[in-house]
Amino acid sequence: MSRATDSTGRKRPSGAFGPVRDEARDARIIDAVLDLIVESGYADLTMGAVAARAKVAKATVYRRWASREDLVADALESLMLPSVSFEGLAAETLREDLIATLTRSSACLQPQRRRFSAALAAATGSHPQIADTLRERYIAGQREAIASCLRHAQERGELTADRVERLLTPGRLEIAAAVGVLVLQEDLLGAILDVEGIAHLVDQVLLPLIGVTSNSSYVFGQ
Amino acid sequence: MSRATDSTGRKRPSGAFGPVRDEARDARIIDAVLDLIVESGYADLTMGAVAARAKVAKATVYRRWASREDLVADALESLMLPSVSFEGLAAETLREDLIATLTRSSACLQPQRRRFSAALAAATGSHPQIADTLRERYIAGQREAIASCLRHAQERGELTADRVERLLTPGRLEIAAAVGVLVLQEDLLGAILDVEGIAHLVDQVLLPLIGVTSNSSYVFGQ
Repeated sequence: MSRATDSTGRKRPSGAFGPVRDEARDARIIDAVLDLIVESGYADLTMGAVAARAKVAKATVYRRWASREDLVADALESLMLPSVSFEGLAAETLREDLIATLTRSSACLQPQRRRFSAALAAATGSHPQIADTLRERYIAGQREAIASCLRHAQERGELTADRVERLLTPGRLEIAAAVGVLVLQEDLLGAILDVEGIAHLVDQVLLPLIGVTSNSSYVFGQ
Repeated sequence: MSRATDSTGRKRPSGAFGPVRDEARDARIIDAVLDLIVESGYADLTMGAVAARAKVAKATVYRRWASREDLVADALESLMLPSVSFEGLAAETLREDLIATLTRSSACLQPQRRRFSAALAAATGSHPQIADTLRERYIAGQREAIASCLRHAQERGELTADRVERLLTPGRLEIAAAVGVLVLQEDLLGAILDVEGIAHLVDQVLLPLIGVTSNSSYVFGQ
């Protein structure tokens, strides 16, 4: 890894100094946060326990994260990165793009990781700022994955700009409904969605709500 | 209250004996379960702690509930009863019926009660049977409230029997999507849905997925 880039792949600002990030060590610390919260909840999480679990000095943790809230926010974000950063193989239709994107999103929501968000959700009563973190880093990430599919469809001419804008208006519920199924899949359905299940989510929920039938790109009236 | 009815209002079977249920005391025990789980999670729940909180003898709790799992199942069901047992004012359209029913369902999901289900959801990793209880008593109750609206609409001739049957086929995701928005509303939207929000959920998500436009009963093709 280049000394000029940090762990997100961005160039460090020129003039930046201080210790270069050790990606493997950072990942170990984030893994420790995920494990500890699943095992004993947010209330019991301390910087010392994270350091001990990751086998690093407590000062190492503090050098990178100011508080356990920051650690938790980055841990949540680490669950989302694979889906949000997906800009790979260009899909040819909105349907294809949604199925590929949601399959990747859903992989972020496998049991161990879902337990992490469930443990955090349980802490929001006594720690309200965790509710914001959960919404901003986790729910927003799922939503953004779908939003990027809509924008690609607009570029391909499958959706009008008006329709995309309307669907992405804050407070509209169409995309929220699809995210809700993804996040709650085990509770709602008693099972994890496989690729076929994701295709059903796209055909039965997302495309009808977007206003596209699953077999064609016919757009029905508003 | 008549000595011949139990706490659900059903007649006791003739020949039934044993202590008559004390509804107020039962409600106090269930409230104690709700409070204790919100405060300290499922792992720490004991029959003794419930008895102490409800100010009853431990034997009183055991006479009515064999285990903490049974207590939790009934506590979950107590959150759902108002919506599921709603057979009151006959709505004249599916839209009206859904808005009235979901407004009542959503009232079951206010912050304190949502925290209860969140605390339970956090326990499913170490107590898998809690996941089943959550699904069978909570998610299924929300789903059933919507299902009864669909059946009423079928009786009124607003929906065909085929369409209702298809929507209620296990594994179909249309109703699951609406339940997901209800259950996750705070996380998805950053707010609790008021009556206007519930109307948006019906107009933007449920009616399009059911195949009815919000302004008429026009049913589009499958």
